[in-house]
Amino acid sequence: MITLNRQSSDPLYMQIYTQIKNEILNGTLKEGQVLTGSRGLAGILGISRNTVDGAYSQLVAEGYVTPRKGVGCIVMKVPELTVSRKRLKKDATIPPAPTIKKESSVIYDLTNSSHTSDLFPKRLWKRYTVECLDRLEKETKISSYQDKQGELYLRKNLLAYLERIRGVHCDENQMIITSGIQQSLDHSCKLLSPTQRTVLMEEPGFHKALAVFHNNGISVQTVSVDESGLVVSKLPQSSNVCAVYATPSHQFPTGATLSVSRRYELLEWAHKNNAFILEDDFDSELRYYSKPIPSLQSIDRSDCVIYLGTFSKTLSPSIRMGYMILPPQLLKGYLEKFEEYNSTVPLLNQYVVARLIETGQYDRHVRRLNHIFRKRLECFLAELADVRDKVEISSNGTGQYFLLRFSQNVEQKKLIEKALEHGVRVYSTMQFWQEKAACPPGMLFLGFSKIALEDIPDCVKRLKDAWKAWL
Amino acid sequence: MITLNRQSSDPLYMQIYTQIKNEILNGTLKEGQVLTGSRGLAGILGISRNTVDGAYSQLVAEGYVTPRKGVGCIVMKVPELTVSRKRLKKDATIPPAPTIKKESSVIYDLTNSSHTSDLFPKRLWKRYTVECLDRLEKETKISSYQDKQGELYLRKNLLAYLERIRGVHCDENQMIITSGIQQSLDHSCKLLSPTQRTVLMEEPGFHKALAVFHNNGISVQTVSVDESGLVVSKLPQSSNVCAVYATPSHQFPTGATLSVSRRYELLEWAHKNNAFILEDDFDSELRYYSKPIPSLQSIDRSDCVIYLGTFSKTLSPSIRMGYMILPPQLLKGYLEKFEEYNSTVPLLNQYVVARLIETGQYDRHVRRLNHIFRKRLECFLAELADVRDKVEISSNGTGQYFLLRFSQNVEQKKLIEKALEHGVRVYSTMQFWQEKAACPPGMLFLGFSKIALEDIPDCVKRLKDAWKAWL
Repeated sequence: MITLNRQSSDPLYMQIYTQIKNEILNGTLKEGQVLTGSRGLAGILGISRNTVDGAYSQLVAEGYVTPRKGVGCIVMKVPELTVSRKRLKKDATIPPAPTIKKESSVIYDLTNSSHTSDLFPKRLWKRYTVECLDRLEKETKISSYQDKQGELYLRKNLLAYLERIRGVHCDENQMIITSGIQQSLDHSCKLLSPTQRTVLMEEPGFHKALAVFHNNGISVQTVSVDESGLVVSKLPQSSNVCAVYATPSHQFPTGATLSVSRRYELLEWAHKNNAFILEDDFDSELRYYSKPIPSLQSIDRSDCVIYLGTFSKTLSPSIRMGYMILPPQLLKGYLEKFEEYNSTVPLLNQYVVARLIETGQYDRHVRRLNHIFRKRLECFLAELADVRDKVEISSNGTGQYFLLRFSQNVEQKKLIEKALEHGVRVYSTMQFWQEKAACPPGMLFLGFSKIALEDIPDCVKRLKDAWKAWL
Repeated sequence: MITLNRQSSDPLYMQIYTQIKNEILNGTLKEGQVLTGSRGLAGILGISRNTVDGAYSQLVAEGYVTPRKGVGCIVMKVPELTVSRKRLKKDATIPPAPTIKKESSVIYDLTNSSHTSDLFPKRLWKRYTVECLDRLEKETKISSYQDKQGELYLRKNLLAYLERIRGVHCDENQMIITSGIQQSLDHSCKLLSPTQRTVLMEEPGFHKALAVFHNNGISVQTVSVDESGLVVSKLPQSSNVCAVYATPSHQFPTGATLSVSRRYELLEWAHKNNAFILEDDFDSELRYYSKPIPSLQSIDRSDCVIYLGTFSKTLSPSIRMGYMILPPQLLKGYLEKFEEYNSTVPLLNQYVVARLIETGQYDRHVRRLNHIFRKRLECFLAELADVRDKVEISSNGTGQYFLLRFSQNVEQKKLIEKALEHGVRVYSTMQFWQEKAACPPGMLFLGFSKIALEDIPDCVKRLKDAWKAWL
């Protein structure tokens, strides 16, 4: 018995479809039964036959009924939907979800791992998504596996950009589109020597890289960093080292730039020790005073640099896209070991980013970011100018954060708590040191990617209030 | 001697920077020398002092010179370049891009790894992308890192779906959204015992899983498969086995369904041997005659199943999205080892899929696929009916392919070549056997995800012509 509700927002044909479907699912209509003819049902309900046909064709399309010539629509066998089995309650052993505490008292979050929403090119992303979906359909690629190294259209455009901005020089066959730096590192671990299993990392360094090395059974040793970046002279001459992971253009987190003489020394060291350099170039295009420093890859003459990049800093960390460039000597191994692999990056997203680069919108976007970040940094510096004898600020005019170091000996924890009491979240630098004791007390990490320019004066005022005992 | 070219597209400060840099690199300017003061140089060149300062600060940033108060910019030590600045031509070592041969003669491609474009819900994908972009902006998530396990909104909806369709039962904290089966396996490898490093695989089995185990330093042993699926009685009682990778609901590629008694035996074996079962449930919802068989996970009482699924078969292989469900006993290890990891799946895409599921569109879509695939399979069976005494067809009414086995002893290679001559690409089954000699001759893999229903009669006609010597 079908009842129609003309006040409902559901169209009539959907109401008919839903009611018949439910009768099939709950067994009222059984396999083999024939539905009332559409002309007949239309008459009974006092509606157009087209409406009933619409409902029936949906039922046919979804496989609830099948049309048979001269008979009508026959109900099909439909799988029972619920598999109800009581499972033993084991919830006790499930750790609770790690929730990020969202203190309502946090007014300003000085993180560098998310952006104010206005920095995402939403309008363009929408436009190109719609456009590229049509294009993918036309190219019959919408439902296909793709090249495991990523879409050639993206690689070509990205390479031209990197050549221009970062001096990167390579063949598009050397490039792999990945889901970000960590995945690039994970791939790298599988390509590095299976016998030399030590990687050198900067101290302090990027803790998220450390986790990947450990999970791939690679042990990590540290090398110190000074105001000219990685202290290359301290690199060990060891036969067990397969690579050094470094951030030459913007040391993370100190902000130091690896000097040109050290760059050549580092390349020389890698060549001599038969090791690779994992060059993490995560935000070097966001350099707003001088032109970006050419990448290490651009001066590598002995094929020892594995170049890593990401769109997390320029587009959004939520799009999960990065890239790596392999030196030619690793390509053969890659093609062998990853022969059966699929790309991990959605093809549509690759098209959208390629389109952004191809149209020049990406360049424009990066310029806009540089302008915005420069303004934000300068505002912080101006607001903090009167306490510069009490705190030292490290920034090389790149990226989206700076370090703050108190001349007084004061615990990070205390400073963080005090700031939080005044509504500002600032971050410890402890996580970047593997040797925790070596981390300077009173050194904090302040990001400005998620704070609007006009909020900075109030934010700094709160920080000064919070820290007045040490300023 | 600096010369400026005002017709050049390079800005003046860049021209100055480049020329001084080159003088340092070629030794004209030596360590310790002081650059002409910026005011002086500006006067000589007849340009603004700001322009010269721009060039100098770039040289400082890159470490070619260092400023000293009251003295000026001093040239730093730069290593002599022993290797020529000309990059060694290594192009010979770059393997050419692996191109997929696109014979113009291929009229029908019987692959199972891509779909006809009409099977992708393009209209809905567009609509929900636009909608979810606005929603992500409103929720200020558009430019943020996300939960490393994937968006909770997707996990909740997906879980409700899997509970209904696959009998899966778990807490949403056990679920991880991944970039597909291979990434789920890669994660799993990092969670399995670091000392027991052997995984058992079905023979024949999914070759793309094999590559992941090998790349994680795990050795693989095979266990045979018969018409009731994995021969559980042949599983070794070995202390070195950490897991068995299996496809219980739709053995890949034989199509066998693991019988209920073997399911319980397999769980028992895993429990006794302290091993895990990697249940790859890649296409079990595409089961079009009977109701889907409940997953192994749904009857696992001892927490030994790692459940793996994918959207590649139902939505598109190009969206790169899958999921894994960890048993509670692996959760603590996961949270520790992956604490510093980011999700690899774009947040926007996760929202779109969540929305598809939440609205019931995904259910409708899967039903539609089942209907279409059933029609296609039935058409193949009908068209091949008259040669069924010469060829055996394996399919359990699930998924998007069947196996064809000739009763005559004939080489796969020969059959494939002949088919290609007649415009049809069919596939070898050799890749699924680790012991190649064990692969039956005359057994082919025919997918029907990329062929339209109306093309099947002509396609089969061509195959019959191609193979008339053996039919």
